Amino acid sequence: MKNNTVSVFKPKKIKNFNPKKVNFYTFHSGFKKRKEDLLVAVFDKAISVAAIYSLTSTPSAPIIWDKKNNRGLCKVLIVNSGNANAHTGNKGIKAINQYAKIASKKFNCSLEQILVSSTGVIGEQLDPKKIIDKLEIIHSSRKKNLLSAAKAIMTTDTYPKTIIQKVKYRNKEILIFGLAKGSGMIAPNMGTMLAYIFIDANLSKSQLQKLLHQHVDTSFNSITVDSDTSTNDTLMLFALNNKKMKKIDNNIFLKKLSFGLQETMLNLAKQVVCDGEGITKMIEITVLKAKNSEQALSVAFSVANSPLVKTAVAGQDPNWGRVIMAIGKSYSQVIQNKIKLSFGKFLVAKNGEIYPKINIKKLDAYMKNKVIKINIELGLGSYTRTVYSTDFTHEYVRINSDYRS
Amino acid sequence: MKNNTVSVFKPKKIKNFNPKKVNFYTFHSGFKKRKEDLLVAVFDKAISVAAIYSLTSTPSAPIIWDKKNNRGLCKVLIVNSGNANAHTGNKGIKAINQYAKIASKKFNCSLEQILVSSTGVIGEQLDPKKIIDKLEIIHSSRKKNLLSAAKAIMTTDTYPKTIIQKVKYRNKEILIFGLAKGSGMIAPNMGTMLAYIFIDANLSKSQLQKLLHQHVDTSFNSITVDSDTSTNDTLMLFALNNKKMKKIDNNIFLKKLSFGLQETMLNLAKQVVCDGEGITKMIEITVLKAKNSEQALSVAFSVANSPLVKTAVAGQDPNWGRVIMAIGKSYSQVIQNKIKLSFGKFLVAKNGEIYPKINIKKLDAYMKNKVIKINIELGLGSYTRTVYSTDFTHEYVRINSDYRS
Repeated sequence: MKNNTVSVFKPKKIKNFNPKKVNFYTFHSGFKKRKEDLLVAVFDKAISVAAIYSLTSTPSAPIIWDKKNNRGLCKVLIVNSGNANAHTGNKGIKAINQYAKIASKKFNCSLEQILVSSTGVIGEQLDPKKIIDKLEIIHSSRKKNLLSAAKAIMTTDTYPKTIIQKVKYRNKEILIFGLAKGSGMIAPNMGTMLAYIFIDANLSKSQLQKLLHQHVDTSFNSITVDSDTSTNDTLMLFALNNKKMKKIDNNIFLKKLSFGLQETMLNLAKQVVCDGEGITKMIEITVLKAKNSEQALSVAFSVANSPLVKTAVAGQDPNWGRVIMAIGKSYSQVIQNKIKLSFGKFLVAKNGEIYPKINIKKLDAYMKNKVIKINIELGLGSYTRTVYSTDFTHEYVRINSDYRS
Repeated sequence: MKNNTVSVFKPKKIKNFNPKKVNFYTFHSGFKKRKEDLLVAVFDKAISVAAIYSLTSTPSAPIIWDKKNNRGLCKVLIVNSGNANAHTGNKGIKAINQYAKIASKKFNCSLEQILVSSTGVIGEQLDPKKIIDKLEIIHSSRKKNLLSAAKAIMTTDTYPKTIIQKVKYRNKEILIFGLAKGSGMIAPNMGTMLAYIFIDANLSKSQLQKLLHQHVDTSFNSITVDSDTSTNDTLMLFALNNKKMKKIDNNIFLKKLSFGLQETMLNLAKQVVCDGEGITKMIEITVLKAKNSEQALSVAFSVANSPLVKTAVAGQDPNWGRVIMAIGKSYSQVIQNKIKLSFGKFLVAKNGEIYPKINIKKLDAYMKNKVIKINIELGLGSYTRTVYSTDFTHEYVRINSDYRS
């Protein structure tokens, strides 16, 4: 398998630091040939956690296991890459039981306080010994930073995805940080997407759950690379339960925190889409003046997932006819003559036909940008939704027809 | 624009003959640079016709026009390729009015007896003069055969699609023939798909309508190339109203005819999918033991439209994990442990995990075939549906990122 070309969106500097209250350990446990492929995150004490999992009806073993065991408290999080432990039946569950039991002994916590995730090839049995061997030596291992943790969970990602933010309120400052991985099977309801976000504050499980659900639709559920949704998607939000801080029950503070978390989640989601397989351009599709939120989303995703729109953008072709086609095939009925379509600030169609003063030269120049904005006004109401997609390139096909060879 | 590589599925001999009771005229009218791009089919007298159009909410002008005017009788059918006359507003409708009026004068029929279709680039105004110029010289033009007619409606198709069949009943023989074009934007509810089928028999409009609806779901609505549905899809069924024959009202004969038409429609639909852009393999996905037809279809299309499944097949990779993923992301809930998955006759997964006796060597050899069959038993009921798809190749991306350049 050829190495993947690094995404043009790779940040110049990837955010990194040594977090407190969570200890990251990373290992090369043998799921991947050479690179590190195991992250064990150990919290100083069991802390509150909220999670959202893939809506697939063929979930992976880790998702089945977590859903059954997770009681909202976590002491140890174990994430491996290289093997998804998906469609592995009872054996897949047993494998988790084995390594989770060892972890619960090592860290003196209940089995319910262990959470697990896996990502990688679907359908191959996971050998628990590979993880157990590393758990056995964990107490003598060196703690790692956020960047190392993000690297250990990568699959076809071409860069590690991290974020560090601070939310200020009066004289307090709350740290939010996180890590994520993509980068194929990214679609509504997440794709092969793993993301872990930590808030250094005292929050209950239900507060975390509420925050997560508030922002998942406009962040991780608003991205798509290939319309394929994975068996393993997981998004977790942890409260590090800073002892110096009282429980947050001030509404203004909570709102600020919520806003900060929204930024964090959207940033991570965009990092995931910007590392979509074979991507050369990010496409930001905004549907405006929809009659409701569902219509806005249905039209936006119909465009975002259209191979013909995605290949046109790859070819720097302002082929707005294909956007009209994709609007038309969405589940939601629109009125053709009311559609106003723009690429960036350049109007291309209104009143059911091409905009007479269309500036092809400027439009062609616009298509050379790395981020292409497609704005679709439906003229039917007042709802707006934005969805983030990628272009569709030769490289996507190469990566995915080569994946196992 | 580079010439497209001819599909590996191109038939060695394309069926052809000189039909009676319909006169085909073809022209190079200037929508395409060099090739013929206009078909005018003139019937000896106005005959019964039934039609099904794209379900898009951004229909092309010809679809809007036909739906308004078509009363179930047709004297002249005008089809151009190279310009879709889609999203062209009132101007697009006016253009049709202009050339349809000329045709109705030339052939001494009402405007309602003219039917029109267009295929090609979306969003460019269609110059009616190009069609009118050819209508002016039509009475001095030479009649063409079925093959020429099929060639004149091609866009990115790499071969013309025709069919000639005979249905026998007692001492009678009924001729069915047709032509179609693909080959991008092919998805449920047809895609940029035009198909015209002629039955040499006496049938009423309502009989034709019934026959068409009986078979469209298992033929043209069961194919997908890229999940994109076009603005211009049109399927028409004509009865040539053979004078020597009485009106068909014998039920057994009608059943035989219906069966013959089913074969014709499936054959044409498969020809369309087998000329999908950049195709190297055809994928036949059959869902068995579904709890209802909707579930079978939803699971089949989820697999058929998955870019990750399609690229895997392009790479001759029996990546059944991706099929499991695609089953899981379909709208319909399945029970993972009940799924039995085979590639051809080779079982790959059952009881929620990989089939222990999986024969990788034979499986790898199987993936080298041109037609790949994926069989998915859900174990939930007794319904079966088959859907036809294509692999997803570099060539698809090349064709579609180059289309207008």
